[in-house]
Parts: sequence; structure tokens; C-alpha cells
Amino acid sequence: MHLTNPQLNDHGELIHLLSLDGLSREIIHDILDRAVPFTAMAECAVKKLPLLRGKSIFNLFFENSTRTRTTFEIAAKRLSADVINLNINTSSAAKGETLLDTVDNLAAMQADMFVVRHASSGAPYLIAQHLATTGRNHIHVVNAGDGSHSHPTQGLLDMYTIRHYKRDFTQLTVALVGDILHSRVARSQLHALVTLGVPEIRLVGPKTLLPAAAARMIEKGPLRVCHDITEGLKGADVVMTLRLQNERMQGALLPSPQEYFKSYGLTPEKLALAKPDAIVMHPGPMNRGIEIDSAVADGKQAVILPQVTFGIAVRMAVMSMLAGGGQ
Amino acid sequence: MHLTNPQLNDHGELIHLLSLDGLSREIIHDILDRAVPFTAMAECAVKKLPLLRGKSIFNLFFENSTRTRTTFEIAAKRLSADVINLNINTSSAAKGETLLDTVDNLAAMQADMFVVRHASSGAPYLIAQHLATTGRNHIHVVNAGDGSHSHPTQGLLDMYTIRHYKRDFTQLTVALVGDILHSRVARSQLHALVTLGVPEIRLVGPKTLLPAAAARMIEKGPLRVCHDITEGLKGADVVMTLRLQNERMQGALLPSPQEYFKSYGLTPEKLALAKPDAIVMHPGPMNRGIEIDSAVADGKQAVILPQVTFGIAVRMAVMSMLAGGGQ
Amino acid sequence: MHLTNPQLNDHGELIHLLSLDGLSREIIHDILDRAVPFTAMAECAVKKLPLLRGKSIFNLFFENSTRTRTTFEIAAKRLSADVINLNINTSSAAKGETLLDTVDNLAAMQADMFVVRHASSGAPYLIAQHLATTGRNHIHVVNAGDGSHSHPTQGLLDMYTIRHYKRDFTQLTVALVGDILHSRVARSQLHALVTLGVPEIRLVGPKTLLPAAAARMIEKGPLRVCHDITEGLKGADVVMTLRLQNERMQGALLPSPQEYFKSYGLTPEKLALAKPDAIVMHPGPMNRGIEIDSAVADGKQAVILPQVTFGIAVRMAVMSMLAGGGQ
Repeated sequence: MHLTNPQLNDHGELIHLLSLDGLSREIIHDILDRAVPFTAMAECAVKKLPLLRGKSIFNLFFENSTRTRTTFEIAAKRLSADVINLNINTSSAAKGETLLDTVDNLAAMQADMFVVRHASSGAPYLIAQHLATTGRNHIHVVNAGDGSHSHPTQGLLDMYTIRHYKRDFTQLTVALVGDILHSRVARSQLHALVTLGVPEIRLVGPKTLLPAAAARMIEKGPLRVCHDITEGLKGADVVMTLRLQNERMQGALLPSPQEYFKSYGLTPEKLALAKPDAIVMHPGPMNRGIEIDSAVADGKQAVILPQVTFGIAVRMAVMSMLAGGGQ
Repeated sequence: MHLTNPQLNDHGELIHLLSLDGLSREIIHDILDRAVPFTAMAECAVKKLPLLRGKSIFNLFFENSTRTRTTFEIAAKRLSADVINLNINTSSAAKGETLLDTVDNLAAMQADMFVVRHASSGAPYLIAQHLATTGRNHIHVVNAGDGSHSHPTQGLLDMYTIRHYKRDFTQLTVALVGDILHSRVARSQLHALVTLGVPEIRLVGPKTLLPAAAARMIEKGPLRVCHDITEGLKGADVVMTLRLQNERMQGALLPSPQEYFKSYGLTPEKLALAKPDAIVMHPGPMNRGIEIDSAVADGKQAVILPQVTFGIAVRMAVMSMLAGGGQ
Repeated sequence: MHLTNPQLNDHGELIHLLSLDGLSREIIHDILDRAVPFTAMAECAVKKLPLLRGKSIFNLFFENSTRTRTTFEIAAKRLSADVINLNINTSSAAKGETLLDTVDNLAAMQADMFVVRHASSGAPYLIAQHLATTGRNHIHVVNAGDGSHSHPTQGLLDMYTIRHYKRDFTQLTVALVGDILHSRVARSQLHALVTLGVPEIRLVGPKTLLPAAAARMIEKGPLRVCHDITEGLKGADVVMTLRLQNERMQGALLPSPQEYFKSYGLTPEKLALAKPDAIVMHPGPMNRGIEIDSAVADGKQAVILPQVTFGIAVRMAVMSMLAGGGQ
């Protein structure tokens, strides 16, 4: 079990957050439950709790992402941790040091947590394994996005959002629309949606972004592939729009942004196919007029900004679970 | 009133600091009064007050300025706020997100204040208006310099400096020397000097930097244009030198730095035309040997470094007024 | 005395840390003694002490070094200081401001300490002297590496490491291996080793990196030059490997990394020449396979990661000595 799921210790407790794959329904709900009180912080005059006071959290960003780094930084500071930001591409890496030597050095500075963003899938796993083999399991690793693999805190905040608005996962029809093939967000969402018992999950996108071979492998259990958006959105309770990851695509998978918008961009007309009380989600940053129409992004069904607020709370929950001591 | 002056609420209280235009003499003096106790902090062993504890202040710098960012960061930290620095040019903006989407996202992270620096005039206004129309007036905006429009905290620290050394504004002759046309600092200074009742304000500079058309529009009330520096400095109580904004000028407005120095650079000889107890100010960073001679910059009449110290205190005053609660 | 050693005040107390040259054995041991309790922090749940609460520490990095900046930032935060990071190459320097004007400005922000990294040897001295001549000796300067001159906190953490493992300096044979000519680390180590009474210090490297003229000047007291590594390592208690500073070398001083590794790279075979309980040190970041073999870097005799841990403690000791008040 230790080998197959390095993010749990021998007692089944979370020690790292690397992926939503392998996390039980109980653990996911536990994290979401812990996030609830943190969402109420906005009403507090003093948005500060001492749960991580005196802890050293390193934001190790091997890939630039101001937005994600900011969410972790604000979450850590509200828990009173000391936060150190490191953009590694411009530092030791340039001097020829290996990833694991960099990690060893920062660990030797008595780190308590590494929040890791990396362009290569698996980098946070590699770091967690290395910490385990060198006897430093007391340092926690949180995956803040690795390649096209996983982005677990994004997945968790999406689940928080769905639970907040829809309560019961087991009656829902959820449509994921867009570039599912390249999206670590989609992977994290799918793991969680399946684990939480969503009975119908539709993967909606063009064949170039969801090829036949992949579609055949994916279609099982609650998962269903729809290349036609009318079919995909019909009667949905939740519409999760994905960002068109232009920067991650190689070659000409797409005709043009205009054509993509025409076929798959979420307009009020297309949204009308879903249930009247369907919610619309987007992980940000949005490409308005490409994957989503401004009328939808700013419309009543959009819960895109609450997602951001819940994201801070979920990250506070994860960080305080891992490093807060005495769970 | 709300429309014409979005920085005041319906009770006439300051909720944003966007510009000194439209601020009354009472409000300006109120800010300066509040800054007084903060200047005494240097003598404290612990330069830290809990006025903004648990508040989240985002330094949104769409234009790089380490110096200005540092003054706001140190002011916020001395008030115990959590400070998040964002250089936006390298982040979401590059991913195609709009300014207002970026603002919405950061607001959703339960921000309390945005300190905004932007190359475009009016950006902080735009942000403040957007926050108002989306019902989030509890988030405060401080303009840290927008295009060639305004730099209100610089204007306020200049007024603090003049009041500190000269007490009464209503008896003063103030000379602004240099590139008034391109200077947001000059604009902020002029608004404040007029509001505070300075009877004679001289705008001193070459015709290329202060063309006839502009000069005609400007010359009213206490304002007077002087292209000859001898005339401009004669009997002045305060000499405010401006930085030659090479980076903001387009085309060949100036002959050469050497010629500029010869005509308008503040030397001891030229300064001797002013009153013997005249003070010399500069917003920094200085171009020694261009707009100011080192003998003046380092001389007894210079109050350039006290301006910096007062600048921290004034920023603490503004921040605590806006977000400190219970005004 | 004031002139010859600006880092001590008239009572012989440390007010700046600029170089290990001129520091007495007593002062060095005093710093190391003060670091001891800070190394125990790893076992504390709350790694935070209030010694520098309300102090403003500016990390002035005129040369990029994420690793060194991080060690000072974490040390300062564990002492509860407010830390401001400034990468100066991208800011005021670009606007034509002089080094001393930048320093004056930051000093006017009521700084308590400058941690200075600069590509030019002597820059921290220049800053300390300027603060003295302008009557601001209450602001402390810590040299975080200046050109090829000095890196005193690195030298101190190396001495801490040797004392930790070997206790008595006066019985030791220490070998420094590598690019001694270009290394500010080596200079700092040599000053400290001589001061602390090490009876035999061997400088081991190729003639290109330690030319005859330099070698003749160096060989005195305990210092001995060895171009042959067998001779250099024989019976050593401490082997200090230096990083091959490719980025600091001009011209073709070296044949190739492969040839360098063959002659001077620390392999298990070469290390076997030293005493069986010899320790291996490296200042990081390591070039594995160039100056050190992975089998040695990861072997039982390596104390490279403890060096990093001790480095935080030593920096906390220096910072709290200088600015902690009541010495």
C-alpha cells in the first residue's frame, strides 16, 4: 500500500497531496469538510489563524504560475506560516544542480512543506519518494500542477463548489467540455467525480482533442464521450468548461479559435440545453470568446469566482491537515 | 457625487486613493496628521503595529517599479498586513486574461486592498469602478502611479515634507522645475499645492517640455509658467526638482542631457536665487548631473531623504485610514 | 582601528559582517556558540523566535542567487523580522541611480539591516563606510558574497561544521580542493581556518587554478600548496571540495570537465587517502561528476546537507548579534 499510494501513511492518513487518484471518498469529504470554516474567513476582520505558525513552506515553482502561487501563498499566510517563494528556472537549475539536490538543500533548511509546480508529470511524486527514502517523511509535498498529469487542489476546489451548490453527488449529470486530453485539471476532476459517485460524467470535445482510441479506453462506468455538444449538455446539472491550453498543444489539433468557439464555446444558447439551475465552472484564466462567451462567464449560472474563494479555503484545509499537527 | 469622485463614499470618507484631484484641504490635512505618529517609528525598537493584522494587501504591479513597490510593502508589513506581490506582465496577462478578470480573481481571494501600478492612465479608476459595480466597495484601491496621470502618495509625501519644514502653505512660493508635461508626480503635486492654498506656484521648464498651448491653459490662479530658470527660482521657498523621464518621452524634445543641465539643472549657483532657507525636493531616483547637481543633492538644503522617510509614514496613514476599520 | 576594521565598533563589538579577515578567534567562536541553540529549532513545532520582531531587513541582491537569498530570508523570518527582497539589477540601477543613492533611499525607509550580494568585490565595504560617514552606523551590513572577495557566512558555517564534527581545530589537517583562485568561499575559509589555529591547511588544485606566483605568496604559516591530489588528501581530517566556478572563469584555464574530474574530482578511491573518519564538505550547488563523485556526495563521510542546516543557524546567530539589541 505504501508503494502504490505514497500520499498516505501506514495508518491511511494523508501525508502528501500528489493526486486525487487513490484518495477515498472519505478522505475527499474530510478535506472538503475541513475547508468549510475557512470559507467564512471573508467575514472576519482578522483573516489569520495560528495553525501553521513557525512552519516553513516553500513554493517550488519550476514553471511560472503567478495565479496558482498566489493562492497557495495567501492560504499559507492566513495560517501564519512563513512562506518562501522560489522560481527555480532562474536559479540553481541554471547552475547545473539536479532536482533532487535542490530538494535536499531546501529540506536541510528545515522545511515543513513543499508546494511543487513542475512542467514534468510525476515531479512531485519523485520528490515525495525521495523524501521517504532519505527518512524525511515529516516534510509534506503538495502538487500544484505537474505537466498534464494532475492538479489535485484544483480538483478538490471543484468538488467543493459542486457540493456547495448541488449537495448530493450521486444524482448528478456532469459535463466536462473542452480540451480533456491535455488537461491535468480534467484528470483530477474525473478521479474525484468517479470516487464521489457521480452517475453520469460526459466528456465533451472534438475528436482531435479526444481521439477514438482514448475515447474507447475512457468510456466505462459513469464516463461517456460526446463529440456533439448538444448531446453533451442536455440535462446537465454541472457544466465544467476547460481552458483551451494553447501553450500545451503541439501541432494543429484545432482548426481555429473562432471555429472552436462556434462548435464548443459555451454560449447562452448552448447552456440553455442544460438544466435551468445548472452551474457553470471554469478553472481560469478564461479565454473569453473562445471556450466561453462573456454572457455566460458573467451570467447568473456562473460560479467561477466562488471557485476561487473556495480554492483558498481548500488549500488552507489541505495545508493544515498535512502540517498542522495533531490532525 | 459618487460618480464624479469615486474615491469618497456617500459620507465623504476616503475609500480609495486614486488621485489628489477632488480631495479637499481637510482630507489632505487629515491624512498628513495621521502620518505624523508613524514618522516616529524609526526610534522604536519594534517597528510594527497591529492595525492591518489579518488583512490581505495585493501589490498589483503591471509596470515594474521596485522602489515604489518596496515603499508600499514596508508600510504594509509595519502595519502587520499580509502582503502579496504580483508582477502581472509576466503572468496571467500573458495568458490572455483581461485586467478585470485578473482583478475579479484576486478579489475572490478575499483581498482587502489593491495597490496598483499601471502604465495606462486611469487603470486604478477602472478597477475601483469595477469593484463598485460588482458590489465590492469593501476592497480599497490605492493608485501607485498610472501612466502620466497621477501618483497621489508621492504628492502627499511631498505635501507632508513641505508642511514639516515650512508649516504654513498660504505664504509660500513653490517652484516646480523640469519635465512637468510628462510627470504624474507634477500633476499630483499641483493638485495638492492649489488645494492647500499655495499663493504662487511656478512651473519652470523649457518650451519643449511645457509648450505654449499647455502653458496658456495652465496659467490661472496661483500657477505661473517660467521658461527662464532665474525668474523661476527667484525668492522661492520650495524648489521641487523633477526627474527627467527619459523613458516616457517620445521624439527629440530635448537637445541633450548636458544642455538641459546647463539650462535647468539645479546647481548651487541657481539655488542661490531662491530664499536662503529654501528646501530642495526630488521624487527620486535622481539623475545626478542632469536635473540636479551633486552639490545640491547632498547639500544642506536638500530634504530628499526625509521625503523617503515621510513617504513610508504617509503610505501607512493612507493604508490604515482605508482598511484599518473604525476610521 | 576603526579604519582598518569597519566591522567592529570602538568597543570591539561586531556591527557589520563584511569579511572573516580581521575577526578574532574569540569573535568567531562567539558567533558559532550563539548558533548552537538555533540548530535545535528543527525539533521545535514552532520555528519562530521574536528576536528581530519589528526589524526591517533588506536583501539587496545586485547579483541573482536564489539559494543564498533563501537562506537569509528563512533565517530572518525565523527571527520574526520583516524581510524585503530586492533584485536591483532590474530596478533603480536600470534607471541610472548610483549604488549609494539606492542605499541612501533604503536607509531612509528605516532599514535595520542590509544583506548585500554584489558582483563587485568590496561593495558591502563601500556601503558600510558610506553608512558610517553619513551617521547611520545603526544600520548593519552583512556580506552575502562580493565578487571573488568574500562570503563570510559561508566561511562561518563551514567552521561550525568542522567544530561540530571534529571539536578541536588545533589538531587538524584540512584539504581545500579545487578552484581556489576564483573562490570567495575559499578566501573566507582560509581566513577562518588560520585564525582558529588549524596547523596544516593544504591548497589542492591544478597549476592553472593556483599559479606558481600565487602559490609562492600563499605558502606561509600553516598553508601548503599541493598540485598532486594524492599528496593533498593523504591523512586529511577534513576535505573541503570547491565548486568549479565555470561562470567566473575567463579564458581556457581548464582542459575539460572530464579531465578535471580525472585529476581532482573527489572519488571514493581518492577519499580513501584521507583519514577513515575524514569529513567531506561542499558549499553547493554541486557539479556531480566534475568536482565530486556521487558516491562521495551521497556517502557516509559527506556532511554537505548538515552544512546547509548549520548555515541557517549561523545566519540567525549573525543577524541576532548585529540587530537583536542588548547583545
